[in-house]
Order: sequence, then C-alpha cells, then structure tokens
Amino acid sequence: MTAPGELRVIPVRLEGEIRSGDSISQKLFGAIHSQGMKLLPGDVLVVTHKIVSKSEGSVVSLSEIKPSLKARRWGKTHNVDPRLTHLALAQAKRVVRMRGGVLITETRHGFVCANSGVDVSNVDGGESAALLPDDPDASAESLQREIHKQIGISVPVIIADTFGRPWREGLTEVAVGVAGMQVFRDFRNRTDAQGYRLKATLEAVADELACAAGLVCGKLSGTPAAIIRGFQYEAGPGRARQLIRPAKRDLFR
Amino acid sequence: MTAPGELRVIPVRLEGEIRSGDSISQKLFGAIHSQGMKLLPGDVLVVTHKIVSKSEGSVVSLSEIKPSLKARRWGKTHNVDPRLTHLALAQAKRVVRMRGGVLITETRHGFVCANSGVDVSNVDGGESAALLPDDPDASAESLQREIHKQIGISVPVIIADTFGRPWREGLTEVAVGVAGMQVFRDFRNRTDAQGYRLKATLEAVADELACAAGLVCGKLSGTPAAIIRGFQYEAGPGRARQLIRPAKRDLFR
Repeated sequence: MTAPGELRVIPVRLEGEIRSGDSISQKLFGAIHSQGMKLLPGDVLVVTHKIVSKSEGSVVSLSEIKPSLKARRWGKTHNVDPRLTHLALAQAKRVVRMRGGVLITETRHGFVCANSGVDVSNVDGGESAALLPDDPDASAESLQREIHKQIGISVPVIIADTFGRPWREGLTEVAVGVAGMQVFRDFRNRTDAQGYRLKATLEAVADELACAAGLVCGKLSGTPAAIIRGFQYEAGPGRARQLIRPAKRDLFR
Repeated sequence: MTAPGELRVIPVRLEGEIRSGDSISQKLFGAIHSQGMKLLPGDVLVVTHKIVSKSEGSVVSLSEIKPSLKARRWGKTHNVDPRLTHLALAQAKRVVRMRGGVLITETRHGFVCANSGVDVSNVDGGESAALLPDDPDASAESLQREIHKQIGISVPVIIADTFGRPWREGLTEVAVGVAGMQVFRDFRNRTDAQGYRLKATLEAVADELACAAGLVCGKLSGTPAAIIRGFQYEAGPGRARQLIRPAKRDLFR
C-alpha cells in the first residue's frame, strides 16, 4: 500500500561493468527490466556520475601520469598517491584550500570539492581514476533524450556525486548534472500556514533527491542508480550548474 | 509492490498547531493513525525541529526584543527585522561571517548556519521566532523514549532543520538531533566491487535521511514529519553533534 504523498526510492542494480562507449540507458533499462520494474511518467532517475564518466571514457590510467614535484611533495607528506594529486590539480581551475592533507579545488565546471572530483573507488581496483564528466548537465540531457527515444516518456535525470562540505563531517550526495526538472523548489514570497511570507527559502531539491538516492545506492553494492517515484518535481530546463554559487557571492572561497 | 531494497518516505500530516508543553509523540501518533499507518520496527522517524522547538517552548515573541545598536544598523542596511538579528546574535557563540546581508554564526551547539537557526516561518505569522531546541540530541532521545514507551518499539529519531551551505545555492535539510542510530555509514577500509580499499568514505546518512524527508515535508504543507521505511540503519548511540566538524579541523571557519 502506498500512502498519499509517499515517495519511493527504488535501487537499480547493475550486473557487470560499464565500459567506454557503453549506452547507459540500455544497461539501465536491462537492469530495471530484470528487476521486474519499469520507468513510469513522474519518475526521476538518479545515476551516480561514475557510470557516466566510465561510459564517456572519462577515466585515466594512473600508470600514464607523471606527477609534478608539487604533487610528489604533497603525496609524500600526506601519504596520498601523488598521481591522484597531480590529476586533481590538473583538473582544477583554482585551488581553494590545500592544507593538512585536504585538497579542495574549484573544478572547471565550477564545483568546489575535494580533489577536483577525481576518484579511484569503483573504477578498476585502484589503477585508474574516474574524472567528473566533461559536461554533466549535457550528459544528463543526453541520457534523458535516450530514455525518451526508447520508451517515449520524459524522465528527469540527475547525475550525482559524493561531496564533502565545510562545517559538517561526512559526505553527502549532490547533483552534478540535471536535465528535465527545476533544481530548486521555490518558496520565496509564498505564504506559510500561519500567513507569514517566506523570505529566503529556495530548496535545492535536486541535491535532496541525490541524497535520497544515495541512501539506497551505497558505495559497495553495485547499485549505481535509483528511481525516485512520487516526487512532485517541476518540469523545466533546470541545470546542475544553477546549484553552483557564483564565486563573487560566496563568502567561503 | 515494494521492490527489494526500496526505501519509502511517508509524509506525516499534522492538523492544528503544536503548543508549548504539547506531547509531540501523542500528536504524531494521532496523525499517523488517522492516515491509516503505524510505525513499524525498522522505521526511522524524521521530525522538523520547528515542532520540537514549539513543544519545548523555544519560541520568542519578537515584541519583547529590544534590538541592540548593531542589530538596528544591520537591519536598516540590509532590510531585515533588527529584532531577528538581535536574537541571532544573542544565540551565537561566534559570528563566522557578517557581510552583504548574510549573517552566518556558530550556535552554542556548534552548528554553523544562517542567523543561528532563528526562524519566523511556520511559527505564528511573523510575530514570534522559533529557536533551535536547547539540546536537539536530547530532544531526539526523549522522543525516541516516548515512542518506545507507547508502542514498545525502538524507532530512531532525526530532528531536521533547513540550512544553507557554502559553494552551493539553495537550502537542504540537515540532522540537528539524532537518537537511536549511527549518523554515519562507514565505508572506510571496506573494499569496493573492484577490490579497491575505500579511503575516505564516511557517508552522513543522518543528513541524507533528513533530505529525503525534506522532499515530502516541504515548507507550506503542514507536514512536519516523515517516516522512512526500508533504510538499513545501524542502531547505536549516534548523535547529531558528531556531524559537527570541530572548528580546529575546519578549513572554512
């Protein structure tokens, strides 16, 4: 029984690996179908960026990296693989903090995150690193288009990555690519149940959807996607880049 | 039909207002029951801090506030109610940033957030402000105990608030009080599907659960709680204060 207003977060398990050139939509359809499920109008599909990067070939073999002196020093001091540091610096538009073993950068997309999003988990056992997709909003749009082509319905797509944050411990999921829905739910100038006009409430629902999906995706379980059913999203041309605060308005960069 | 591994996020609608001294557990049971639902073992209950603050009497009438000169100047320059600024400063242990109309403080609990969490939405139409609960972890524990007393099962409780964050636009939910579950899912030193040993993955599941609940709670809908069903939480003495990064390890304070 489904309660009114209820949200369902349905994990999509994927057998086997995604390789460069693979069609993610095909793989996901196969997986969804083999779970006895299907995508329905109103669903939102959340996909971890890792399978997108793999399918797009945004994976670098670490053996090909010749780390710079800076990366070697940092790696030695902080016991991290200097090739990863080299890659993270190469992917960065700007270093935001580089201190105490923590490297926070601004990527060329504008995301502020650790190590420019360069990641060796769930790639190939530590010998290769996945980069963020080249243009994650475009990747989401392309996946949305593929889905529409194959099943004739328009399902918003969120591409998620796992980011840390200042002030709070632990990582949470964020949306790095979005297509087909507004990324915010806008309560500004609406009136609450007590008649008070809300001033500053712009809810980052795309990030919250990424978090909800993260709860079922995990990091070990071979579950790189989730279907979110029952969320009243607002259709439209939302983009994850709208979630990036412009540097000039950011007090913590 | 529920898919294996599926998560359900079930909104709990509450008729009427919460007043100082009200039993939240009684009110929530009434609401859950009238929706034809009940709490089950394995459920997590997420409650917005606002109803907790109201029931605990952590609400201040703005007419009683005599704003300081600093608050009056800030209010005038940035077109905000100086009484709210006064209250926010009074609730702060430390001002983290006060610039361009944005006041970020560290509360005495240690949370870093806008205006010390002082909030006039969903209180009484703009004439009163809700503060954060005195000790939100203790509030969560007390609610968990009440629930156990009434229905004999131990349901983890998360008290959520809506916070902004650096680098990204929009607000998301965070856990400000937790009882009955670990706040992190710890992947450190576990091995992914490719045999790679994960290094830094400590997932803040309490915050992600708060976000999932936020998707159904909204700000206008009289839905101050949600039941999350199907999440494999780790029982234990987790506390929201574990989610606060100690100032000395924080590069952005």
